[in-house]
Amino acid sequence: MALLLTPLGPPPEWLRHFKAELPDLEVRLWPEVGNREEIEIAAVGSLPHGELALLPKLRMIASLFAGQDLLLGDPRLPDVPIVRTDTAEGSQSMTETVLLHVLRHHRFLPQYHDQQQRRAWKPLPRLRPRDTRVGIMGLGPLGLAAARTLRDYGFDVAGWVRRPREEPGIAIFHGPDQLAAFLARSTIVVNLLPPTPALRDVLNRETFALLPKGASVINLGRGTHVVDADLIAALDSGQLGAATLDVFRQEPLPPESPLWAHPRISVMPHVARRLEIDEIVPRIAENVRRLDAGQPLVNLVDRGLGY
Amino acid sequence: MALLLTPLGPPPEWLRHFKAELPDLEVRLWPEVGNREEIEIAAVGSLPHGELALLPKLRMIASLFAGQDLLLGDPRLPDVPIVRTDTAEGSQSMTETVLLHVLRHHRFLPQYHDQQQRRAWKPLPRLRPRDTRVGIMGLGPLGLAAARTLRDYGFDVAGWVRRPREEPGIAIFHGPDQLAAFLARSTIVVNLLPPTPALRDVLNRETFALLPKGASVINLGRGTHVVDADLIAALDSGQLGAATLDVFRQEPLPPESPLWAHPRISVMPHVARRLEIDEIVPRIAENVRRLDAGQPLVNLVDRGLGY
Repeated sequence: MALLLTPLGPPPEWLRHFKAELPDLEVRLWPEVGNREEIEIAAVGSLPHGELALLPKLRMIASLFAGQDLLLGDPRLPDVPIVRTDTAEGSQSMTETVLLHVLRHHRFLPQYHDQQQRRAWKPLPRLRPRDTRVGIMGLGPLGLAAARTLRDYGFDVAGWVRRPREEPGIAIFHGPDQLAAFLARSTIVVNLLPPTPALRDVLNRETFALLPKGASVINLGRGTHVVDADLIAALDSGQLGAATLDVFRQEPLPPESPLWAHPRISVMPHVARRLEIDEIVPRIAENVRRLDAGQPLVNLVDRGLGY
Repeated sequence: MALLLTPLGPPPEWLRHFKAELPDLEVRLWPEVGNREEIEIAAVGSLPHGELALLPKLRMIASLFAGQDLLLGDPRLPDVPIVRTDTAEGSQSMTETVLLHVLRHHRFLPQYHDQQQRRAWKPLPRLRPRDTRVGIMGLGPLGLAAARTLRDYGFDVAGWVRRPREEPGIAIFHGPDQLAAFLARSTIVVNLLPPTPALRDVLNRETFALLPKGASVINLGRGTHVVDADLIAALDSGQLGAATLDVFRQEPLPPESPLWAHPRISVMPHVARRLEIDEIVPRIAENVRRLDAGQPLVNLVDRGLGY
């Protein structure tokens, strides 16, 4: 049995972990596909559309990315189960990214940086964590782990999700009807929504206007969640105080984008999450074993929901 | 009995907390001193030199600052006990500041910001916390609380202190002889040393050269700990990767300072610590009660050591 891998990160580390978990598995590194008839599993980040359809014996796809939009956008995607490689514990690196950027905005670092450019020495309010109301859009594995960490740190945390649910110490808002109330109470918004069509452009002129004046936006979801021109207009009008963007409609962000030069936008080159190979490989291996044993797979992607 | 206060932060909040703790105490807000004969206690941040000497009945000075250099630099400082207003638990806001800036440097945010100015999209290594070796210079109440938080977060933490001691999970280096070894293992250095004459200029060309190439420096101690020209030279040579400075030899930092414009220096206007009035007033009140009862004071400043 062979597995086709698109290695993100060092190939030797992938191979070492697969060897330890599944010694009999042959791991092939894209684009060295070899005999396509032998490939039964694909562990992929991004592949050119149509490539997976060329694997006649494919039985399972393990998605290395948290967002399934690239994979599900393949019009010739084979009809085999897709399993996620993240878990309910979330991701250490994504939680760290959320904590870091929420702390930055909580302590007004983007504003201080803007002041530095003008050589302005002006202390700003020093808020307690409980005085900062963070709103997490999307409580999937990544968002939930981050929200719990922020709650435990002492921030006043809310989440916006599709369906009502309970989470101790976190105010849950759900559905389109409660979006306005969620936004109105959030001075820092963190976007970790899944990349589904219904959520495209969800952060736009109208939703920015619902935030408290001077609020911050941190986008760690997808570039398509945010209307860039509306974001810039909201920053320029003072409705938004600052924004941190890790994802963009086009990546790498083109040099001509006005996002680069805005004094209160921090541009990060899509580095929020570190692919934790040592954690991902055992999750893939678990599903490979289940597949071989005829047991139900875990962490299945729901193609209808898009995540 | 009257207490003279230099109010940093909102006076009503000070007065409310003093009223709750010591209802009979008359609190006077500098510079409205009134009859100097009635003032027995001074709770001060910075006062013009010689002012405290004008209070003939002064029995105790409560220092609102963590560093005692301004107070001890008064050549006419009365010979009464000086008590600190911080405690072994450190300061929530200072610990938060250390965590925030260590995370920023751990995740290479200053470098990403520099890249953003050049519209360069270039992901940098995503290190695990255990792969980042943080060195805290000074493990007083503020430094120790921060070091423990960083250790618990997962960073590889060391501390540099005056005398040998033990601290679980933190590598302790002490004295001038072990400074080189401490620096050689630290990729992020956080300065929280006390402002004593012996430690003036401790971060200079020679000590920067002992750090691993590309290391970061975070100065939350005093501006006089760092030789600014040496810092800029070390950044320009690539010996240092980035620096965050909250304190300066002259504050506010003069507009002509080259520190403002350096692409890998983050200038903060001395905002690392929030004066936690609700925590400080009970600490002052505790010593006022002890003074009245003839009991030994707690959290005494050692004038010989300078902290």
